[in-house]
Amino acid sequence: MKIQELRATPIAVSDPPLLNAAGLHAPYALRIIVELVTDRGIYGLGEIPGSSAALAAYDAIRDVVVGRDPYQRTAIRRAIEERLAGSAPDPKALYAARQLALRVHSGIDVALFDIIGKDSGRPVVDILGGRVRDRVDFAAYLFYKYEGSGGEFGFERDQAAAGWEKDLQAAALDPAGLVAQAQAMVKRFGFASLKLKGGVFEPRVETDTMLALRDAFGPSMPLRIDPNALWSLETSIKYGKELEGVLQYFEDPCRGQETMAALRKAIKIPLATNMCTTNFDELPGSIRHGSEDIILSDHHIWGGLQASMDLSRVCRTFGRKLSMHSNSHVGISFAAMIHLAGALDELAYEADTHYPWQREEVIVGGKIKIEDGAVEVPREPGLGVELDREALARLHANYLRCGIEDRDDEIEMQKKVPGWKFQATRW
Amino acid sequence: MKIQELRATPIAVSDPPLLNAAGLHAPYALRIIVELVTDRGIYGLGEIPGSSAALAAYDAIRDVVVGRDPYQRTAIRRAIEERLAGSAPDPKALYAARQLALRVHSGIDVALFDIIGKDSGRPVVDILGGRVRDRVDFAAYLFYKYEGSGGEFGFERDQAAAGWEKDLQAAALDPAGLVAQAQAMVKRFGFASLKLKGGVFEPRVETDTMLALRDAFGPSMPLRIDPNALWSLETSIKYGKELEGVLQYFEDPCRGQETMAALRKAIKIPLATNMCTTNFDELPGSIRHGSEDIILSDHHIWGGLQASMDLSRVCRTFGRKLSMHSNSHVGISFAAMIHLAGALDELAYEADTHYPWQREEVIVGGKIKIEDGAVEVPREPGLGVELDREALARLHANYLRCGIEDRDDEIEMQKKVPGWKFQATRW
Repeated sequence: MKIQELRATPIAVSDPPLLNAAGLHAPYALRIIVELVTDRGIYGLGEIPGSSAALAAYDAIRDVVVGRDPYQRTAIRRAIEERLAGSAPDPKALYAARQLALRVHSGIDVALFDIIGKDSGRPVVDILGGRVRDRVDFAAYLFYKYEGSGGEFGFERDQAAAGWEKDLQAAALDPAGLVAQAQAMVKRFGFASLKLKGGVFEPRVETDTMLALRDAFGPSMPLRIDPNALWSLETSIKYGKELEGVLQYFEDPCRGQETMAALRKAIKIPLATNMCTTNFDELPGSIRHGSEDIILSDHHIWGGLQASMDLSRVCRTFGRKLSMHSNSHVGISFAAMIHLAGALDELAYEADTHYPWQREEVIVGGKIKIEDGAVEVPREPGLGVELDREALARLHANYLRCGIEDRDDEIEMQKKVPGWKFQATRW
Repeated sequence: MKIQELRATPIAVSDPPLLNAAGLHAPYALRIIVELVTDRGIYGLGEIPGSSAALAAYDAIRDVVVGRDPYQRTAIRRAIEERLAGSAPDPKALYAARQLALRVHSGIDVALFDIIGKDSGRPVVDILGGRVRDRVDFAAYLFYKYEGSGGEFGFERDQAAAGWEKDLQAAALDPAGLVAQAQAMVKRFGFASLKLKGGVFEPRVETDTMLALRDAFGPSMPLRIDPNALWSLETSIKYGKELEGVLQYFEDPCRGQETMAALRKAIKIPLATNMCTTNFDELPGSIRHGSEDIILSDHHIWGGLQASMDLSRVCRTFGRKLSMHSNSHVGISFAAMIHLAGALDELAYEADTHYPWQREEVIVGGKIKIEDGAVEVPREPGLGVELDREALARLHANYLRCGIEDRDDEIEMQKKVPGWKFQATRW
């Protein structure tokens, strides 16, 4: 079996005006849909965050991927790494090139697993070692947000929307707004765990939001907050102490492995990270410093499904727990996350997903159903999702029309708050 | 697809009187041949070191393996671990139970990969991520030994033997004998790397043996010695300094991670281990102490093929290199080692193998050919080896006849040296 064609199609999906430490989500979130077509009529799908660099990278790796047997996963990874990060003028450029290579490869890796699963008549979860759970639990991913549903509606409301799609248009700019958002999301999807994207308002407001969620949902609902490393060590200790007994875990309150390690000694809440330890090169520092208790895997960032399985083994070996990170995504990445979570030996927490915030899909049958906060691990061969080519064309047209080629939450934020600037440590 | 039957057949293969730190190899080496039979007519093969405990363990796990789908590798591993090491009266018993579970599981894991490969029409190397090399290089595994060929001949010579089988009968009890053994082995198999099993004679003799090998083969032949941790730190430093520039690496000269770490700071030879860091539980200590440069993987010890791939990732992450350890074995384990080595991303050295010392086989077609010191990675589905049931019956009869149920090199040694006792640190 040989790969005959590599297609990388940029798409833009409507994304509501969600606030975060970097600013504000633009009306469209960018993704790249990867297709690998083989000479046996089997094709594999992948999906990664969209950017002009990633799009160019797929062009740059086409000739080292096409012509290969899809089972040669390691050789394909090495060829991609060599092509994209084999040389660089300086360490900073090398770091950036390696990060890009991991992301670009992750889309290929998922497509290879999709092909191998289809070729074997097996779901991807079985290619990864088999299912250790039949259902994957997700957390409600809560955001402070402006009113509006994004996409063509921007900060306006889509008057035709109903149910959660109507509810998601509401502004949520204070504790009461966040509680209402959480209630709507829990009502619709049955989530049994809540995560707040913080780093938006001053820590007092965000801490009060967590306390309001605790009051509204009671002590049995696990709560997490992720200030995206915008808090100083001192601030993290101060509010962390207040949130002891409230939080299930505290995600990236402050920046850097050494700072996180210092915080870890000062408060009694498990620390999680998707920012201080984000790749295999950073793991030795994490172990040396003792930076965190929980690593948030993300197959897009760590370099694919196999790399995420490898990360799980490292976590098990060194006493770290595993949870799962997410960015805005559609159904191909969601399916990949579900298969991966189905196979991960020790996934200790409900996984993150932005999925409820995206209203559009590229897969046949529309959005994957989340029920009781969980999704069943598919039993169909491969990822178990097929590409809806009409939807792909429509979302690609969105991409061309919206004119966004790279995510820049700072520029988007400036539309609401003129002069707004990102700060690495704000409070 | 379901596993219908688990068979574990103990066999005994002739083994020459090889000397090592634990004493002397008995005339027969014990192995257990594992067969998993599925309801689709596909069967999978595995092989592990033989012992009465392992044999009993296969009986103990039969009901948690039979009935399962062979793709459910992780769940099967967990069920075996739970059954064999789920509880233990004290930490020492737990450690022993976990070590046994890893070994027993490794035979099952190899058989599962064999089945999955056959089911997919793919060699096992492809199920592990694909081949990164077409040929696997091995090192000549040199032993001090008494005259004789083992098996029914014991310390006698098999007068009908020819070629290497004749040569292997020679005694090798001093540097000149070892050089002659190495020359015969290199002539027959084309090995381009030499490893001496040390820990037998006093360090002066073993060091002189390495210097004699250097003289005989010149500086382009990589050399290693493995005193099996019988040397003190002081002795290891003294002879290590003498062997700087001579050894490719120094395998387990002394005992324990802290001692190895101290040695590592004192001499300029990379340290390798199969004794101070032997499982995932011991990796954090290895990293903390900086015990070694090279970890010798062994899929029987580390818990199977997947675990060995995982170990490779840990090594890559933490700056360890990887080589491969061996015990006396036949063709099923050899095939498994070759597929694994074919898939390992970074295998930095020629792998160990005892294979030339075993004259008997359980696989159809007889012994796998080593040419130019290497073996081609098979392209047939699964392991690419089939069980020769006549040979299996014959070697099982050997097992029943020889009366050896557990390896005990100390007792065997006492036949030659009355009163001989193992010492953990001898020199």
